[in-house]
Amino acid sequence: MSGRSVAIVGGASTKFGVRPSTWSELAQEAGAALFRAVPELRAEDVDSLFVGAAEPERFAFQSHVAPLAAEQMGLRPTRILQRTELACASGQSAIRSAYAAIAAGLSDLAVAVGVEKMNLPSVAEANSAMGCVMDRPWDGPHGATAPPFFAMVAQRHMLEYGTTEEQLAAVSEKNHRFANSNPNAQFFDKTFPRDKLLRLPMVAPPLRLGDCSSMTDGAAAVVLTSEEYAHRYTDRPAWVRGTGQYSDFHNLANAGSLTDWVGLRHAGRRALDQAGISVRDLDLAELHDCFTISEIIEYEALGLCAPGEGGAFAADGRGAVGGDLVVNPRGGLLGCGHPLGATGISQALEVFQQFSNAVPAARQAPDPEWALVHNLSGSANVHSVMVYQRGGAA
Amino acid sequence: MSGRSVAIVGGASTKFGVRPSTWSELAQEAGAALFRAVPELRAEDVDSLFVGAAEPERFAFQSHVAPLAAEQMGLRPTRILQRTELACASGQSAIRSAYAAIAAGLSDLAVAVGVEKMNLPSVAEANSAMGCVMDRPWDGPHGATAPPFFAMVAQRHMLEYGTTEEQLAAVSEKNHRFANSNPNAQFFDKTFPRDKLLRLPMVAPPLRLGDCSSMTDGAAAVVLTSEEYAHRYTDRPAWVRGTGQYSDFHNLANAGSLTDWVGLRHAGRRALDQAGISVRDLDLAELHDCFTISEIIEYEALGLCAPGEGGAFAADGRGAVGGDLVVNPRGGLLGCGHPLGATGISQALEVFQQFSNAVPAARQAPDPEWALVHNLSGSANVHSVMVYQRGGAA
Repeated sequence: MSGRSVAIVGGASTKFGVRPSTWSELAQEAGAALFRAVPELRAEDVDSLFVGAAEPERFAFQSHVAPLAAEQMGLRPTRILQRTELACASGQSAIRSAYAAIAAGLSDLAVAVGVEKMNLPSVAEANSAMGCVMDRPWDGPHGATAPPFFAMVAQRHMLEYGTTEEQLAAVSEKNHRFANSNPNAQFFDKTFPRDKLLRLPMVAPPLRLGDCSSMTDGAAAVVLTSEEYAHRYTDRPAWVRGTGQYSDFHNLANAGSLTDWVGLRHAGRRALDQAGISVRDLDLAELHDCFTISEIIEYEALGLCAPGEGGAFAADGRGAVGGDLVVNPRGGLLGCGHPLGATGISQALEVFQQFSNAVPAARQAPDPEWALVHNLSGSANVHSVMVYQRGGAA
Repeated sequence: MSGRSVAIVGGASTKFGVRPSTWSELAQEAGAALFRAVPELRAEDVDSLFVGAAEPERFAFQSHVAPLAAEQMGLRPTRILQRTELACASGQSAIRSAYAAIAAGLSDLAVAVGVEKMNLPSVAEANSAMGCVMDRPWDGPHGATAPPFFAMVAQRHMLEYGTTEEQLAAVSEKNHRFANSNPNAQFFDKTFPRDKLLRLPMVAPPLRLGDCSSMTDGAAAVVLTSEEYAHRYTDRPAWVRGTGQYSDFHNLANAGSLTDWVGLRHAGRRALDQAGISVRDLDLAELHDCFTISEIIEYEALGLCAPGEGGAFAADGRGAVGGDLVVNPRGGLLGCGHPLGATGISQALEVFQQFSNAVPAARQAPDPEWALVHNLSGSANVHSVMVYQRGGAA
């Protein structure tokens, strides 16, 4: 890589949940929270705004959302303004764009904001909107929306490796427990012990309600800048050290395997190599647990354990505080909810806050130096990974 | 700016028009045309894909279009894959993202493709989709979709400066005449002499049918790479020398003026300054003539003439071959049609082809060295500009 070093130097989030707020109001709320959280931030210094939003056209009947977000946040970008969309990875896509722009010298101080308003009066309309994330003419007629697709993945993983419903529930239990320490999480005040999870209604076998992330409204924002300016905002920047993406099919008929996530293997390897570390060096990971089975396969694809051992990795608590590394301390998509465009930004914010030891003890990784953030999108056909290193004195 | 120099080294376009093709088929067609047009291009060397698309969610009932385009084009990006959206400027936004990624060293060889399928069986649905480009809850109820808004701008320009319907028609006549030399233009085989234009039906006074760009299906793609690799593909690269964007309001109530496009003044100045040239150095400009009045105001905001003199600039043929510079030789949005995400890519492609003297004589700028591409989006509240320089021996 050429270009300047880039870091996240601050951020903020709205409460995630079923919110009686419009898309614009969520953007405004994230902006207000950002200026409170980063008092050194002056609106006139922000030269660029990158907006992560998956489907405002369908969920909020609004397109051209980048200038709308700018206005609502009190920003007037003079360098770059754009929205990035990559379905469930739209937030990370906005951060990657900000990173590239700053590294190239096109921006000095950028905000990446993710906003999604998913709860519509009509559940059928919301489901129809979600359905167009998959290949609609080819996979849509077969009913391949997210829950049935990931249910098929889980069934196949069970067949190949003997993964159990109890192991799936272990992921959900851990992430919901973490969410109990995060007031912005959708399920902050709800507890999900394993026996309760195993009695929840089935959504698409073997996935029960507690195995699925929810339709959520929310917004989050982070500030990125270069090595020249980072010290103005924090003494603990989260430096971007690696980035990887990989796309290996779209139409499901072209998928080589349901349980071997080739794209994540490639994207993870590239991001870790760029950072010059091994997966064993990670103290912390924010993984895309849109469904419990996703987190299990992600352990495997990242090389935290061997193929087929993800279920045991979860059940043995190796992703909890005191385990191999802390996975999804924020509460994950399962505990926080999954406002598509906001999720990737919220994950990066958690990394920044973890590096500053600024989260409740119940979810704080011990003195973390290296963190990885992962998002998948669509039918797990695209994987996006970023690796961060804590800056400042140890 | 830090980072590497970046150039467009090839590209191709589909036919623009009312096409009996789906979004996916248009992407596939652009991919096939690209590989024919750039025989040195190998799919496995393309590490990144940037997709410009404004509203596939509403026009094509499809989201997560970046991996869909990749699959249709036979590409498997291993570095960066994303869709950018900035309404009518979505295509240029994709190019800017590719430029930043290459300059930062995150990509070595990228394709930027723009695709839009706008013609739906239902005109009402298409109009509803276009309506959500503006601020829907605030401006929507007042009927502020594109034609009424730009009609208001034209009325105001006429009031302030005495601009006439004949001057508006001069823009349309020029761009349609250029389109007659571009077989990919929607109105390639239609002629629009000024007296005919002035008798066309009124859409929103004073804008007649010939003053408005159309709902168009189409796709276009360009290849970008760095200074290390450009020579592999062409001896006449189009180097990116400057980029500017500016956003100064979203809700129409916050617009300071209808006829002084502050955002374009700023974005144009920044891009030209970065390139180290004056507007007088431009040989060629692709301006966003979504409506005839737009091109007139763009002459003024870029400083090609004084405020209020844009109408005369058009009527005097100063934007035609033999004038001050050649404006919209491709045929503009008026002559080519305006498939939102494809327009910005198609404009950049014209610059590349003009630099190689590879277009018909009727629209060839004489030995051009400097070119500017402009897109506006929404209610002309966001302006995006890029400046290119011809590479290779003179």
